[in-house]
Amino acid sequence: MTDTAMNDTASNNTTTGNVAQGNREVRLVRHPDGALAVDDLEVVPTEMPTMAPGHVLIRNTLLSVDAATRLRLDPVSPPGYLPALKPGEALAGMVVGEVVESDAEGYAPGDLVHHDLGYREYALVDPDNQALGVAGALSKLDRELGPPELQVGLLGMTGLTAWAGMFVVASLKPDDVVWISAAAGAVGSVAAQLAKAHGCRVIGSAGSAEKVTYLKDVLGLDAAFNWRDGLDEPLSEFEPDGIDVYFDSVGGDHLKAALTHLRPLGRVALCGAIAGYDGQPPAAPDNLFNATTKDINLRGFLAGTFADRLPEARKHLAELWRSGDLNLDLAKYEGLESAPQAIVDMLSGRTTGKCVVVLG
Amino acid sequence: MTDTAMNDTASNNTTTGNVAQGNREVRLVRHPDGALAVDDLEVVPTEMPTMAPGHVLIRNTLLSVDAATRLRLDPVSPPGYLPALKPGEALAGMVVGEVVESDAEGYAPGDLVHHDLGYREYALVDPDNQALGVAGALSKLDRELGPPELQVGLLGMTGLTAWAGMFVVASLKPDDVVWISAAAGAVGSVAAQLAKAHGCRVIGSAGSAEKVTYLKDVLGLDAAFNWRDGLDEPLSEFEPDGIDVYFDSVGGDHLKAALTHLRPLGRVALCGAIAGYDGQPPAAPDNLFNATTKDINLRGFLAGTFADRLPEARKHLAELWRSGDLNLDLAKYEGLESAPQAIVDMLSGRTTGKCVVVLG
Repeated sequence: MTDTAMNDTASNNTTTGNVAQGNREVRLVRHPDGALAVDDLEVVPTEMPTMAPGHVLIRNTLLSVDAATRLRLDPVSPPGYLPALKPGEALAGMVVGEVVESDAEGYAPGDLVHHDLGYREYALVDPDNQALGVAGALSKLDRELGPPELQVGLLGMTGLTAWAGMFVVASLKPDDVVWISAAAGAVGSVAAQLAKAHGCRVIGSAGSAEKVTYLKDVLGLDAAFNWRDGLDEPLSEFEPDGIDVYFDSVGGDHLKAALTHLRPLGRVALCGAIAGYDGQPPAAPDNLFNATTKDINLRGFLAGTFADRLPEARKHLAELWRSGDLNLDLAKYEGLESAPQAIVDMLSGRTTGKCVVVLG
Repeated sequence: MTDTAMNDTASNNTTTGNVAQGNREVRLVRHPDGALAVDDLEVVPTEMPTMAPGHVLIRNTLLSVDAATRLRLDPVSPPGYLPALKPGEALAGMVVGEVVESDAEGYAPGDLVHHDLGYREYALVDPDNQALGVAGALSKLDRELGPPELQVGLLGMTGLTAWAGMFVVASLKPDDVVWISAAAGAVGSVAAQLAKAHGCRVIGSAGSAEKVTYLKDVLGLDAAFNWRDGLDEPLSEFEPDGIDVYFDSVGGDHLKAALTHLRPLGRVALCGAIAGYDGQPPAAPDNLFNATTKDINLRGFLAGTFADRLPEARKHLAELWRSGDLNLDLAKYEGLESAPQAIVDMLSGRTTGKCVVVLG
């Protein structure tokens, strides 16, 4: 098995001689003291996993760097979420890879797959008994749908999160006025474009002038603003009568502003609260009672809840991508050794679009 | 018209001689400075309304004293809610009355009706053009469904609020574990009994030992506790695995506790936030992100949104009442002059069940 480990072609099973490099993984050194620092993580050489009955050995090729990974790095993770990691443990995360060896039905060497044992170069997965559950379950990818870069973002959990948040959670309608927060981010940029493609009027917010330009000029949103300059004024200006849907990846002051500007029967997709991930949680929105007086629905969700809709979401997203209605910029980092920097950059808002680490 | 004004029988149209008493209404004297005080309101003699074409003159008989009335007494009312009252203006509120004179199709003297121009003894209503909108629209009541006490509470907006909150907003299922806040109050006590009758396990909270006894011994809830002694411990004890549904009439610390104890895919009916009505708003729940990690749905609602379901709710509630599965204790006050005390008592938690003022 190990003799084919570094082979990245689908049909070739010969020895590559790279086996001696073994495996590497990203581990938590210590729980962050506030914002995550690069040296809170380390890249460590490890043993190559030993092939086991019923398992699939995968060479990871493209790592998805997701904000939610931060949620497991504090001593206690949020209620209902995956357990916190202890110092010394390896991170996990969505990743695309290629099957190197398989003893599991339905998987053959060379297959392109998607699973949740990222932050390492090689992963051994038991399709029938996976660590992180449904959301991260091993699944075979259709190469015809698009390149690996598309599969890890737009056609992976990133795309599913945006798609389910818009269409299932927020019940998006073509005449909705929609505000997307963190709209230059991986999920936000897909959500914003889905809303545009659906016929909605869309305003996006982001944390820099460059991102605001990106939202207007590249993504073609109807309006965009830098939240560091204030939230209420641009929202009022965009639509004095208020918004119908708010896609929340931020929490705190953003959610408060949404509760101010939402119209009666408005809907909020509570996707994330990055304002509170990496340091002090922001103040809680003190106008939640607006939800009662304006009949607003706030629906918290994890993409994993909608895992059964992934094929449907993938199909829809791939169609939009092929027709040119969806753009997913990549913030690319090279090699597992860059993964700590990638996650720090992504959490601090220094990346645009989908942040990935190219592993091979 | 005025010669029949004080006549409370359905068939008799003769003069009563009481006309000289005229009308009285409850007015706002000044915006409350914190908690509402009795002398922030006054009962003032006024002219009898003059019958007008297309209108219905109603002698109000039973006034519903509702917490939401407080929302209009501050200088600004919550977004999306009915406008704030100015000092000198009369309060409004749900009320049952009898038609005295009618120039509107479908209404005849003696008819029992339900409408929103309470806090006065006589009201003149144009069925086609009402001040407060759908929720408070004039409707004829079926005397066969039950006595006026039932019509103003269980079969009125109180019952609709509880019914819609449980069945529509929270999608109540028989195997749900349910927490009802303010469970000895008008809406809470109906919501709690609806959940019990639906097969759920129900825990109720209230603000005094007497109310806790009432919840257990009279309403037959599975458990009850006094929130002044803490929220987390009784909830954990009742169901260590967490609750499925929380009916929120309180907000603040109650909503925070719910977000702690709700299970994944839990549902919250955001009915009210009385903790913030009458004085300083409580701290906002700082654990709202639990909604994301636990896939929790929080749905704010006003009963008026479900006004079209009122006939269905009334039928269901009346059936349960007749079969003995629903109890609605009344906190009765006599005469319009007692209305200011009634609303102050209700807001400060000194009443149990449905608070009403008997007007005639």
